Amino acid sequence: MRKVFQAELHQIGEELIEISKLVSEAMQKATTAFEAADTELAQEVIAADARIDFLQNDLDERAIDVLALQGPVASDLRMIVGALRMSASLERMGDLARHIAQLARLRFPENVIPESIRPTFVELAQLDIAIANKVTELLETRNLELSLEINTHNARINELHAGVFKAVAAADWNASAPTTVDVTLASRYFERFADHGISVARKGVGATTGSMVRSSSGR
Amino acid sequence: MRKVFQAELHQIGEELIEISKLVSEAMQKATTAFEAADTELAQEVIAADARIDFLQNDLDERAIDVLALQGPVASDLRMIVGALRMSASLERMGDLARHIAQLARLRFPENVIPESIRPTFVELAQLDIAIANKVTELLETRNLELSLEINTHNARINELHAGVFKAVAAADWNASAPTTVDVTLASRYFERFADHGISVARKGVGATTGSMVRSSSGR
Repeated sequence: MRKVFQAELHQIGEELIEISKLVSEAMQKATTAFEAADTELAQEVIAADARIDFLQNDLDERAIDVLALQGPVASDLRMIVGALRMSASLERMGDLARHIAQLARLRFPENVIPESIRPTFVELAQLDIAIANKVTELLETRNLELSLEINTHNARINELHAGVFKAVAAADWNASAPTTVDVTLASRYFERFADHGISVARKGVGATTGSMVRSSSGR
Repeated sequence: MRKVFQAELHQIGEELIEISKLVSEAMQKATTAFEAADTELAQEVIAADARIDFLQNDLDERAIDVLALQGPVASDLRMIVGALRMSASLERMGDLARHIAQLARLRFPENVIPESIRPTFVELAQLDIAIANKVTELLETRNLELSLEINTHNARINELHAGVFKAVAAADWNASAPTTVDVTLASRYFERFADHGISVARKGVGATTGSMVRSSSGR
């Protein structure tokens, strides 16, 4: 029974990592599509989101089965509840990558972002990708320092996000109103993606701590 | 044991209803503050959000305790997992009401929304409040017809949300860029609020169905 249980926990962990990798890949492709006005790549991201949704559902059903069949307690229970929450955040991150791809597709062959503010969005994209990669690495290695790095990236994203609104309010902002809408939404999507990344990292750290407690108490 | 368990389930249900009522109240006040440029009322909403966050955390801890101590299975287990998910969506709805209040406070004494598009936002506000109220009612009465009504409201919100972008793209849109940003964000907040309302309703219906199945199988 205990062996089956450990195998199930392991499987849940593996699925989380798989979803996290797909999210990371989605964000990389979405931002490339966004920056290069590549509608085919955008379409690929949009289509691939269904796989993330499927895996989230699969993971959740597996987690509920483990709760029902194994009746875990203490840190194991918290790990499984944590996995349910992390999968929800990861699924949402996949949606946000899809939204960025959809903006690229909507404005094709135009570029979504005006030239003057493009460097900000390049940095936002890089930071979101870094966060997604570090979330995956955190799930794989449980190296808690990654969580601090994710927080640092997120702080910079919040600065850049505020900077976008400052740029739009400046006297020399001369983009059209629909472009202003796109810039606003895109910036918000990047900011939300990072925020969900923080959530996953926080829960990942919680689960890790739980796991450490479990090990040290010799269960 | 069974009696304690039923009392705990009941308590979780009551807490969900309490949070849902607070979310509904937050949205009512936030939209009033938003429409009337009432910064004091906005401040009230912002301050009150901490209570929603506290209750969500309390409910989640209670739900995890029930999972640990009672080891529920089948529909009871799904109901508790559903409660964890509903509390996360409700907490997010509270955040969105707070964001709307924050926009009102940020632009005070100005009105956030230009006059030409205000009727759209009045309707968005009414629909979001209706959704919040119906979510509470659904949790209280388990009347599944409410779920259909919530879907209908949500469909109208999606129309209005799309209409906002059409208005901004029209030749006669002459608001400043920062106002265009505010309009975009506000519309998105209203749309997200409804979407989370749909999630809660869907999970509420799932939990209800579970409960019905449980009754009919005579457990």
